[in-house]
Amino acid sequence: MTRVAILGASGYTALELVKILLRHPEAEIGLATTRQQEGVPLSAVHPSLAGQIDLAVEHLTPEKIIGHVDCVFSCLPHGVTASLAEPLLDAGLRMIDFSADYRLDDAEEYAHWYGQPPPAPARLPHVVYGLPELFRDRIRPADLVANPGCYPTSAILGLAPLLDAQLVAPDDIIIDSKSGVSGAGRNPKLTTHYPECNESLSAYNIGHHRHTPEIELILSKACDQPVQVIFTPHLVPMDRGILTTTYSRPFDTVREADLFQIFRTFYASHPFVRIVEHLPATKDAAHTNFCDITVRVVKDRILTVSCLDNLVKGAAGAAVQNFNLMFGYAETLGL
Amino acid sequence: MTRVAILGASGYTALELVKILLRHPEAEIGLATTRQQEGVPLSAVHPSLAGQIDLAVEHLTPEKIIGHVDCVFSCLPHGVTASLAEPLLDAGLRMIDFSADYRLDDAEEYAHWYGQPPPAPARLPHVVYGLPELFRDRIRPADLVANPGCYPTSAILGLAPLLDAQLVAPDDIIIDSKSGVSGAGRNPKLTTHYPECNESLSAYNIGHHRHTPEIELILSKACDQPVQVIFTPHLVPMDRGILTTTYSRPFDTVREADLFQIFRTFYASHPFVRIVEHLPATKDAAHTNFCDITVRVVKDRILTVSCLDNLVKGAAGAAVQNFNLMFGYAETLGL
Amino acid sequence: MTRVAILGASGYTALELVKILLRHPEAEIGLATTRQQEGVPLSAVHPSLAGQIDLAVEHLTPEKIIGHVDCVFSCLPHGVTASLAEPLLDAGLRMIDFSADYRLDDAEEYAHWYGQPPPAPARLPHVVYGLPELFRDRIRPADLVANPGCYPTSAILGLAPLLDAQLVAPDDIIIDSKSGVSGAGRNPKLTTHYPECNESLSAYNIGHHRHTPEIELILSKACDQPVQVIFTPHLVPMDRGILTTTYSRPFDTVREADLFQIFRTFYASHPFVRIVEHLPATKDAAHTNFCDITVRVVKDRILTVSCLDNLVKGAAGAAVQNFNLMFGYAETLGL
Amino acid sequence: MTRVAILGASGYTALELVKILLRHPEAEIGLATTRQQEGVPLSAVHPSLAGQIDLAVEHLTPEKIIGHVDCVFSCLPHGVTASLAEPLLDAGLRMIDFSADYRLDDAEEYAHWYGQPPPAPARLPHVVYGLPELFRDRIRPADLVANPGCYPTSAILGLAPLLDAQLVAPDDIIIDSKSGVSGAGRNPKLTTHYPECNESLSAYNIGHHRHTPEIELILSKACDQPVQVIFTPHLVPMDRGILTTTYSRPFDTVREADLFQIFRTFYASHPFVRIVEHLPATKDAAHTNFCDITVRVVKDRILTVSCLDNLVKGAAGAAVQNFNLMFGYAETLGL
Repeated sequence: MTRVAILGASGYTALELVKILLRHPEAEIGLATTRQQEGVPLSAVHPSLAGQIDLAVEHLTPEKIIGHVDCVFSCLPHGVTASLAEPLLDAGLRMIDFSADYRLDDAEEYAHWYGQPPPAPARLPHVVYGLPELFRDRIRPADLVANPGCYPTSAILGLAPLLDAQLVAPDDIIIDSKSGVSGAGRNPKLTTHYPECNESLSAYNIGHHRHTPEIELILSKACDQPVQVIFTPHLVPMDRGILTTTYSRPFDTVREADLFQIFRTFYASHPFVRIVEHLPATKDAAHTNFCDITVRVVKDRILTVSCLDNLVKGAAGAAVQNFNLMFGYAETLGL
Repeated sequence: MTRVAILGASGYTALELVKILLRHPEAEIGLATTRQQEGVPLSAVHPSLAGQIDLAVEHLTPEKIIGHVDCVFSCLPHGVTASLAEPLLDAGLRMIDFSADYRLDDAEEYAHWYGQPPPAPARLPHVVYGLPELFRDRIRPADLVANPGCYPTSAILGLAPLLDAQLVAPDDIIIDSKSGVSGAGRNPKLTTHYPECNESLSAYNIGHHRHTPEIELILSKACDQPVQVIFTPHLVPMDRGILTTTYSRPFDTVREADLFQIFRTFYASHPFVRIVEHLPATKDAAHTNFCDITVRVVKDRILTVSCLDNLVKGAAGAAVQNFNLMFGYAETLGL
Repeated sequence: MTRVAILGASGYTALELVKILLRHPEAEIGLATTRQQEGVPLSAVHPSLAGQIDLAVEHLTPEKIIGHVDCVFSCLPHGVTASLAEPLLDAGLRMIDFSADYRLDDAEEYAHWYGQPPPAPARLPHVVYGLPELFRDRIRPADLVANPGCYPTSAILGLAPLLDAQLVAPDDIIIDSKSGVSGAGRNPKLTTHYPECNESLSAYNIGHHRHTPEIELILSKACDQPVQVIFTPHLVPMDRGILTTTYSRPFDTVREADLFQIFRTFYASHPFVRIVEHLPATKDAAHTNFCDITVRVVKDRILTVSCLDNLVKGAAGAAVQNFNLMFGYAETLGL
Repeated sequence: MTRVAILGASGYTALELVKILLRHPEAEIGLATTRQQEGVPLSAVHPSLAGQIDLAVEHLTPEKIIGHVDCVFSCLPHGVTASLAEPLLDAGLRMIDFSADYRLDDAEEYAHWYGQPPPAPARLPHVVYGLPELFRDRIRPADLVANPGCYPTSAILGLAPLLDAQLVAPDDIIIDSKSGVSGAGRNPKLTTHYPECNESLSAYNIGHHRHTPEIELILSKACDQPVQVIFTPHLVPMDRGILTTTYSRPFDTVREADLFQIFRTFYASHPFVRIVEHLPATKDAAHTNFCDITVRVVKDRILTVSCLDNLVKGAAGAAVQNFNLMFGYAETLGL
């Protein structure tokens, strides 16, 4: 049994995490924090938890955490996380961080995309990117795992087998992603106000979404070549789900059957990637930790379509998958 | 041609009003105001108006309005309206007000439901309630028309024929209403944040929704007897539309066929009420000024179902219908 | 470990059942049948099951079932079920039936509502209605459990404490229910075609929905008095969820606090009913076996609002709850 | 005043057409046909038309049409249209056809994509493609106009200015389109059954959607060069709206400001194309005949985003725009 703390417990990824951990036979939630609402029952912050958990949220102070839990899940926002995390990491706690604060290992790149220097530059080179399908062996012993962004998970899992096999040009890749609204968080804004985004579809942050460098960095590292992508996110009127369509250019003529074989081999030992022959829908993977992927050849391009639940495989499920690896449990436990 | 001003132009009812007035052959929008965003094109406040109207929003000052327009549509919030409206009314402008500030004619009742005295008590006895199906002749000469609430319109139109004919007990009426989310306005809140209200249904303000006294007052006045109702609103995951189901108790046995005849006669001269034999859906009336009504007898009760578009017949369309009556145009012009 | 068969495995309730049983530590799915698609993998019938279960659907024949499984979940349609079920029951199999074929114990009543005599009249008096919150002790030893309808569960759980305490008039009850679209099944029809029911709300089957006699019968039996209700169902644009608002008339003045106490006591030993003080939303109970209930006093009426997931507590979850009771497992196992 | 017939009046595009024509001051609907439902009021086929039009649908026979109307709008399905249309065209009637039967001018190409020879090959070379923004002068005198597909309109309008200016490689174009569900028609199918496609996103027909050759043909003809595209459609959980994102490769470095100038000039005389600087949402153009377009430069690619309402600018609105041109009315009349 491992005792865990959840920092920033008022959002959607934290709620999803609580729900998964409540079913997890080897995890016990010892503490949940939020900036506001101190003393309020967690089940009042999230009414769907009524009768499920008897815990009041608290203000985050290191003393409540250090010595009381073995693992910290941090669902704090970008920029806020590192300052709060550093004392906990220094005290030897193991952490799975949902923010982007530790995802990029290059300080300049971070500064370019986030408009400020990285909050903890000294630690960046040692952080492990928590995508088990690419870095499982490095995750097991890690003290700090940067949980991947939701879009990057869908894009990287779709493209890695192609780039790893050196089948496609690494500088001619288009990623057209579509996400449900929960990916934008629980803070009310005009763009996610129901009558604005319901019955509507829009692209946003074209050319400057912060998941772009994350995708490029991880694919470059994992596949050992400089990868450059064009990434376009779209907002879809649904709660949860990401569907990512990628377009890449093969060096040579390829057959779909061979591509399926490559994908199946690449993910043979990874229980949460399902290579499917039909065109997957986000609903197939909703409320699960699966990422469903298919591949097609159209004219001179390879297309991949990958689907996942942004709150599960794109956030809380992946975090528990990392937790399982870090603490020696079966990778699929509780998922 | 009548020149009009729109106060509080940033919300959904104002947007709907602009769209209707742009198609109206006898109305010209001379001015649009908002509290913020002075100088911003109205088409930037509402991107769907791109290329449709060349007008920048302004701060509301009486000088910009008095002498420049003939009619004021006020989409300002409850409590704010009256203080801004009074100087305009005193200057002889005619106004259609979307707020609740002038809807209740009893100061005590207003104070009970709105938590403060009515902003302009002296004017209340002279205000006309802008439901043409009940008060058409009083609307024509009115200087100030209180545009009805969206729920009250659906409930009153469904019940008035029964109460007017003294068929049902006026103190045993249940109104179960369901509304799309645009009825809650354009101001982002957690309850109308997409991932909160999408794929979900909830009741709210049970027993203390402010449309309760409005329904009771208008039905009592129109049907000349003290009416008392239980009104329960629900929030439905859709943009627009209200469906109201009413349950009332007839004094005697009634036949559905006779009820249909009563409803058809009651609304014979009213072009925007459609008495239908099928069970109407809100979509049938969406984007129109129609209210679709049907009636059923079940055991010892009469049920009515009425559907309308809360932004049109429940707000902006009704306002233009009132405008047409006040300025001598055909009641259906532009609608 | 109990081996089970699922009859009629192509619909939504069957899919939900499979998902629950896959997580259930003491159930093993031995067989799944459909009328069509013989030999097709169950994961092709339901793409969300990809990689989750290795089973092909088969045609239903008694020989494949008798002697091979211990429990049959029948998700077959009304009218079809009984003829297929009778040989299995005669052979001693225990069954949880999702259809209405065994829910009404009065042959005449059945004939009135279903337009034909009941398919197995001799068995009707012995069938147990599978609502554990009312009939737990009778479910444990039962061979045949009629799994409740989704609307009835929400209505009965909301009203039973009031009727049981003889607080309200049993012949003055209004039930206004609202359901997501999955309740209409997986067979494509115009009324459930996406562009017809999306962004729309409608009432249907007013006065003649077949869940009316089921609600009346069960409440009458459970609360030992002749109960008569008006039941109005509405179709809501969402996948899953039922919210039921009931209006009943107390014999005497009541206080909300006392009502909460009555409800809490009534359901004290029932883990899947959550008495909540806030107004629950269907989303709170989505994907769970909970039914959330609250109660209000408004003027001279008692209102209850109950929410549940029509596919879980309204169908497959309740079935597994019954299964647990019948086979001696903890009532909450796997749920 | 021009008298028109609508063939195939039971679908969504026909309904939208009726609504537009009812507001059109110079069109009169003389006849509406469907294969089934002879004698049924059109307002029973489409309940939203209640009280709006007094016309019963009829079986299509040439005698009812020839000599009775001046213009035929055909909303019949692909493959069915031509056999019914030919006698009408031969009799001198002018027609706007919504099907694909006359869109491709190459019989072999047609046969490849539609699996059968074109139904009226002799007429193909003389048909005008009804996209006024490219072919206005040819539409005016035309007797037969092939109304464009919804996806092609969004893609062609986004790409034509770039190809016309010979700025981008005509064989390196990716079109990633997303459409609401009404584009799939009114015939219930499992893929458009509410609980299947709601809260879900999927790609479909990758590499073999029939709008691919239409896009290639029209862009090739209009821009005088062989254009080849990869076209990927996606199904989005909303009623109406198409958003198309295109990726093309400029021959030289380009500046966004110059591209905006090119787009504004290209569409200067076209009232229904709005070049906008913000990223448009489908909702901005919903229920209008506008197509909103923006352009971005990202790394070595030009991206365009175009939004329209598939039932209006993508079907019925475009048809009325063509009608206006053909019969000498102002292009925007009634729209």
